[in-house]
Amino acid sequence: MSTITEARFEQLLSSRAAIGRNASGGGAWPSAPTTYEFGGGKPDPGSFPYDGIVEATRTMMAAEGAQALTYGEPLGYKGLREVLAHKFDHFEGLQVSPDNFLLTNGSLHAISLMISALVDQGDAVICEAPSFSGTLQVFRRHGADLRGVPIDNGGIVIEAVREQLTALRAAGRPCKLIYTMPTFHNPAGPTATIERRRELLALAREFETPILEDDAYGDLRFEEDFIPSLYALDDSDMVIRAGTLSKILGAGMRLGWLLAPQALLPIFQSFNFGGGIAPFTSRVAAYYMRDHMTEHIPTLIDVYRNKRDAMYQGLTEVLDGTDAEVSKPAGGFFIWIKLPTDTDTAKLAQFAREAGVGYVPGGAFMPNGGGERHIRLAFSYESEENCHAGSRHLAGAIRAAML
Amino acid sequence: MSTITEARFEQLLSSRAAIGRNASGGGAWPSAPTTYEFGGGKPDPGSFPYDGIVEATRTMMAAEGAQALTYGEPLGYKGLREVLAHKFDHFEGLQVSPDNFLLTNGSLHAISLMISALVDQGDAVICEAPSFSGTLQVFRRHGADLRGVPIDNGGIVIEAVREQLTALRAAGRPCKLIYTMPTFHNPAGPTATIERRRELLALAREFETPILEDDAYGDLRFEEDFIPSLYALDDSDMVIRAGTLSKILGAGMRLGWLLAPQALLPIFQSFNFGGGIAPFTSRVAAYYMRDHMTEHIPTLIDVYRNKRDAMYQGLTEVLDGTDAEVSKPAGGFFIWIKLPTDTDTAKLAQFAREAGVGYVPGGAFMPNGGGERHIRLAFSYESEENCHAGSRHLAGAIRAAML
Repeated sequence: MSTITEARFEQLLSSRAAIGRNASGGGAWPSAPTTYEFGGGKPDPGSFPYDGIVEATRTMMAAEGAQALTYGEPLGYKGLREVLAHKFDHFEGLQVSPDNFLLTNGSLHAISLMISALVDQGDAVICEAPSFSGTLQVFRRHGADLRGVPIDNGGIVIEAVREQLTALRAAGRPCKLIYTMPTFHNPAGPTATIERRRELLALAREFETPILEDDAYGDLRFEEDFIPSLYALDDSDMVIRAGTLSKILGAGMRLGWLLAPQALLPIFQSFNFGGGIAPFTSRVAAYYMRDHMTEHIPTLIDVYRNKRDAMYQGLTEVLDGTDAEVSKPAGGFFIWIKLPTDTDTAKLAQFAREAGVGYVPGGAFMPNGGGERHIRLAFSYESEENCHAGSRHLAGAIRAAML
Repeated sequence: MSTITEARFEQLLSSRAAIGRNASGGGAWPSAPTTYEFGGGKPDPGSFPYDGIVEATRTMMAAEGAQALTYGEPLGYKGLREVLAHKFDHFEGLQVSPDNFLLTNGSLHAISLMISALVDQGDAVICEAPSFSGTLQVFRRHGADLRGVPIDNGGIVIEAVREQLTALRAAGRPCKLIYTMPTFHNPAGPTATIERRRELLALAREFETPILEDDAYGDLRFEEDFIPSLYALDDSDMVIRAGTLSKILGAGMRLGWLLAPQALLPIFQSFNFGGGIAPFTSRVAAYYMRDHMTEHIPTLIDVYRNKRDAMYQGLTEVLDGTDAEVSKPAGGFFIWIKLPTDTDTAKLAQFAREAGVGYVPGGAFMPNGGGERHIRLAFSYESEENCHAGSRHLAGAIRAAML
C-alpha cells in the first residue's frame, strides 16, 4: 500500500467520512481477550435454535426457494412482516398491518435509514445521555448536533426535552428528531413510566418533532408490568419504532425493521440501496418464527432473567458498603454501574483486564462527553455461573481501584 | 395517516432525501405484468442450487452455528473472503488476500459505501453514459455532479475522460472518482480493450483519481478472450473493485464485496452501520461455494450464453433490414438496442405492453439525460424459448412503432 495513495484518499474523503474519523466515540474499549465477556450486547449462544433454523431452511426452500434466491420487495418479504404483525398482537396486544413494516439489516440499519432521511450536517437532534453507542456513531457520521438530555428512574426527563425544544425554536432551528429508548434502556436500564410517555408524545405534537423509539429489548421482559410503547400510545403519527430479531432469534440473521406510518416508509426505504432486504434470511426467520416464536421468547426470558439475577447478586455481594449504584433492569441485556466516588478508572481498567473481565466504559454512551463515573456490563453472553463469578471479580477490581 | 404529519416530514427531510425525491431517474419503467420479463437483471431461477444451499446450511450450522447466529467481524466472515480469494485465483489467475475484501449486502451496497466515503453534495464524479441505473440513483442521492462520458465498442472513451479531468483541474475542483464497468457493460455490453484499460489507469495516476470498477458480471464470460481487470492491472492502488454473488449464486443471498487496498477498507466499512455483514448467509454461501463453485459457474455460463443467443437471434431475425443496432455482449445479462431512426417510443411502449414484453427505456441509464433511442433487454430470467419468442414479439413492436 503506497502511502501516496492513502494520503490522496485522505484529501478526497467526504465530509461525513472525515467527521467519523475525528469523532472519538468516547473512551477506549478494552481489547484484550477476556475470560468474562461482559462488553458487547451479544445474545446467549446456548439458546440459539440451531435445529429449528436448519429445519426452517429446508421447509422454506422447498416451498419458495426461487423467491428466496432472487431480488426482494421494497418493504421486505411480506411473510416476515405478517409474522411480525402477529408477534406485536400476541405479546403487546398491538394491532399493526404488515404494511407498516420496512425490513432492514438489523435495527441499527433501521435507525440509520431514518437518520439519513432527516438529518443534514449541523441539524439538531435530541437523544438521551447516556444513549446507545451505535446510534451515537450514526448520528456523528451524519454530522448531527447532538443534544443530550438526562434520564432518571422514570425514563427521559421531560423538562430537559422541553428546554431543548424551546431553545431550538427560539433560535429558529428545527429539532429533526427525538431518539429515545423508553423500555429497558441501553445502557442505563430504566423503563419510562406511562406518564412520561404521554408527556413526551404531547411534546412531540406541540413541537411537531418526530420520535424515533428504539425498542431492541422490549420482548425480553423479566417482570410482570407491561407498559405500551410510544408507537402504541401515539395518535398523531409522529412515532417511528425500530426493532430487531437480533435479541430473540439471532443477531447473525441481521434482521430488523422500522414500524411506521405507511406513507413515510418509502422515504426511509429509498436510502436502502440494493436489491431488497435479505430475501433468503427473512424467509428462514419467518418460517422458524411462525412455528416456534410463542414458546421461544418465554424460554429466552427465563434464560436472561437468571443471568441478570446472577450478575446483580455477584456485584452487590462485593460492592455492599460502598456508594456504588448498580442497576437492576426489568428486561434487556445490561447492568449499568455508577462507580464509587473516587474510583481510579485507569486502575479499574488495568485490574479488570488482569482479571479477564470485559466491560464498556460509560463515555462510549455519552452524546456530549462525560460518563467517566459509569461502566456497562452485558449479562447476555456468558453463562449464569460466569455472570456471577465474573461480576464478583469485577466488583473486586472496583474495590481495589478506589482511591 | 394524517396529511399534517406527511407535510411535516416533508419540511424536515434531509437535503439528500429531498434530492432523491426530485431526481427523475430518467424514464418510467413499464409496470404492467409481463409475459416476457426482460426488464430487471434477475438471475435464472432454474439454475439456483436449491438442494446445495439446504445441504450447505445443514453442514455449516453443525460446524459453526453459534458464529452464524451472532454478530460478525468488521470485514465480514473470513471463510467467505477466503473462498472469494480462491475464486479470483481459479478463474482469473489473480492473487489477492482475504484481507483485501470487505463483504457487503450485494454490490450496490458496496458501491454506496465507496460513494459515501468520497462524495459530498456537489462533488464531481465521472461515469459512463450510459451507466448502471442503480449506481446513478446512489450518486444522485449523494448529490453528485455527474459527468457522463461516452463509451464505444472498445469501452470508455479515454479522450472524453481526459477532457473532464482537465476541465475540473482547471476549475480547481477534484474529481472524486471514475465509475466504470469495463467488462460486459450494463446496459451497453462492450468490454474495454486492454489498451483502454491501461490508458484509463494512466489517467487515474496522472490525475490522482480513484477508479471504482464495477464487475458484477465478469464471471459470466461466454467467449474465449479474457482481459484482466483494472484492479489486476493497477500498480498504484487507485482501483477499488466491486463484485457480487447475485449473478453466480443467488441475488437473494444479498452478498457482495469491495476488493481494495487493505488500508482503505476501514474507511468504507465505517459506513456500514450495524453488527457485521450477514454472518448467517455468508457462511451458507461459503460452504456451498467451497464445494461447488468450480462446476457451478461453467454451468451458468452455458445457460446464459444460450439465452443470449436465443434473444439475439429473435431480435435480428425480425429487425433485419432496419437500421436498428443490437448488441451481442460477450458476457453478462443484457442486450442493448439502438432503435431504428424515427421510432415512436410511446407507441413502442404501448405495443410492447400489449405483447406482454417488459424492457427498460434507455433514459434510466443516462447520467445527464438523453437515451431515448435505446432500450435494454435482460435475457437472464426467461427461458431460452421465451427469450426467442418474446424478443421476436418485441422486435415486431419496434417495427410497428416506426414512423
